Amino acid sequence: MTVLVALPDEGMRNRIATLVGGVVPDPGDEVEFVVWTPDAAPLDRVIDLLVLPYVVTYDFLPRLAGRVRYVQSQSLGYDGAAELLPVGVAFCNAVGVHEAPTAEVAMTLILASQRGWPDLARNQFAEKWEREPYPGLIGQRVLLVGVGGIGGEFEKRITGFGVELTRVARTARGDIHSIDELPTLLPDADIVVLAVPLGDETRHLVDGAFLDLLPKGALVVNVSRGAIVDTDALVEHVRTGAVRSALDVFDPEPLPAGHRLWSLPGSLVSPHLGGNVQSMKDRIDPLVRDQIARLLAGQNPDHIVLPA
Amino acid sequence: MTVLVALPDEGMRNRIATLVGGVVPDPGDEVEFVVWTPDAAPLDRVIDLLVLPYVVTYDFLPRLAGRVRYVQSQSLGYDGAAELLPVGVAFCNAVGVHEAPTAEVAMTLILASQRGWPDLARNQFAEKWEREPYPGLIGQRVLLVGVGGIGGEFEKRITGFGVELTRVARTARGDIHSIDELPTLLPDADIVVLAVPLGDETRHLVDGAFLDLLPKGALVVNVSRGAIVDTDALVEHVRTGAVRSALDVFDPEPLPAGHRLWSLPGSLVSPHLGGNVQSMKDRIDPLVRDQIARLLAGQNPDHIVLPA
Repeated sequence: MTVLVALPDEGMRNRIATLVGGVVPDPGDEVEFVVWTPDAAPLDRVIDLLVLPYVVTYDFLPRLAGRVRYVQSQSLGYDGAAELLPVGVAFCNAVGVHEAPTAEVAMTLILASQRGWPDLARNQFAEKWEREPYPGLIGQRVLLVGVGGIGGEFEKRITGFGVELTRVARTARGDIHSIDELPTLLPDADIVVLAVPLGDETRHLVDGAFLDLLPKGALVVNVSRGAIVDTDALVEHVRTGAVRSALDVFDPEPLPAGHRLWSLPGSLVSPHLGGNVQSMKDRIDPLVRDQIARLLAGQNPDHIVLPA
Repeated sequence: MTVLVALPDEGMRNRIATLVGGVVPDPGDEVEFVVWTPDAAPLDRVIDLLVLPYVVTYDFLPRLAGRVRYVQSQSLGYDGAAELLPVGVAFCNAVGVHEAPTAEVAMTLILASQRGWPDLARNQFAEKWEREPYPGLIGQRVLLVGVGGIGGEFEKRITGFGVELTRVARTARGDIHSIDELPTLLPDADIVVLAVPLGDETRHLVDGAFLDLLPKGALVVNVSRGAIVDTDALVEHVRTGAVRSALDVFDPEPLPAGHRLWSLPGSLVSPHLGGNVQSMKDRIDPLVRDQIARLLAGQNPDHIVLPA
């Protein structure tokens, strides 16, 4: 069997080819690699596995009809893909690649905000030693909304910090609260962490009513998708000092120059760092290798979130 | 028995007086509070317990001879106090107050540096969306120098982050390495965290030779005392890109305007945040209350690090 794998750049092609040397299960099997992205001219052969560039919009998906069997995204979220995916093409997300580093970003944003950044960065640039007591993290009441992959990795990381952690999921189970209980939970949350996938239920979950229920000065942290938050409502609440925000994702994204969230005191901006760390290849490369091995073995790839 | 307690400000006096209401063990006992700091005119009575302001230099200590029985510091470190403490006065440090928030600062500095601050802050001020892959923390090799109170709290916090942690103490025990092994450990450390008390053995522990042994781009984090590091050697290594630094403590401190550490790329400056969080009173107040209770009971206070 020959499996045609399209990779988005030479670097990844070389890394995966090296890795796959070790997993071809039979001497008669063969993997062929091509460097190709959806904006290039179509190939005259069907691609068995198309690995997308890390950051994409999905406008190109309809053009893959009849040309690709499996799309392998390098992201965890895939909001917007279902509507555009053509019949006959299956879509796999990158489970296990970004959850831990994204939870790491949430911790970074929380600690930085609770310890006075970006004020401290302003002071550093001004070469000004100014020693204020900031809230810190120890003893704070943290409300985690979402207990999936990112939420689980966040829990591992926050555990040692001496906080009161409350968890919220779509449905209650054990000591996890239902999302319907948010109105009674929000007034006791010093820090809210948003780690839910974007969908019809979660779009603008954080709106003016949500924000009004938080204690004054509470911190809103978003590491999932920008549209979980009603940006206009958030800006208004940050502007008045009702809440602070520390966001890695935005709506609109990229955050345009001139947007209030860049400059409001109490707003910390990080440019969708998520899983974008130098060690990302240590996790995405083995995932792609394993997907190729499954195709060679005549199996479906793992992590099919949108079947053909 | 009457115990005379001097507190550094009205706020603390009021908080402690409220707390102590609950611990006076006998109706005949009595606590008297006075607001007094060592730069004020001497009292005509002996102070049983003098609580110092949070941030002090110890020049005043000799003047306390014959005027104070126990000095209660609000800090953990007390380098420089032994030389100046007069005969007959004992010195207590603030065990349990700052270890956790100081470890929190170490985590903040590590995460911020590993995720691209202060570059990201510069981009925020310039309203510039620039998405670079930074090293991140997951998978990094962290060398913790010092396994006392701060080191222990640091361990609790770093545990969930998926790093390789190596610990170093004065003497080897179990899987803790001896400080003599540093030359063989440093070449494998991506991040070095300094959490040792300042003393003759540790002054300038981090010198040019230490820094030369680190891998290129390694991060040096200091949350103990500035003089653990030879600042000139560090500046030179940060300037050339050999290492990065994320410091909460400095030598000299405060870091003066114009110092290279304010402006060098790869240098993150935090103004001795340590335990200086808004929740500090939740830990220092009960400690002072307990010390008063011990004096009322005719016992010595706890945490005497420099006996009379």
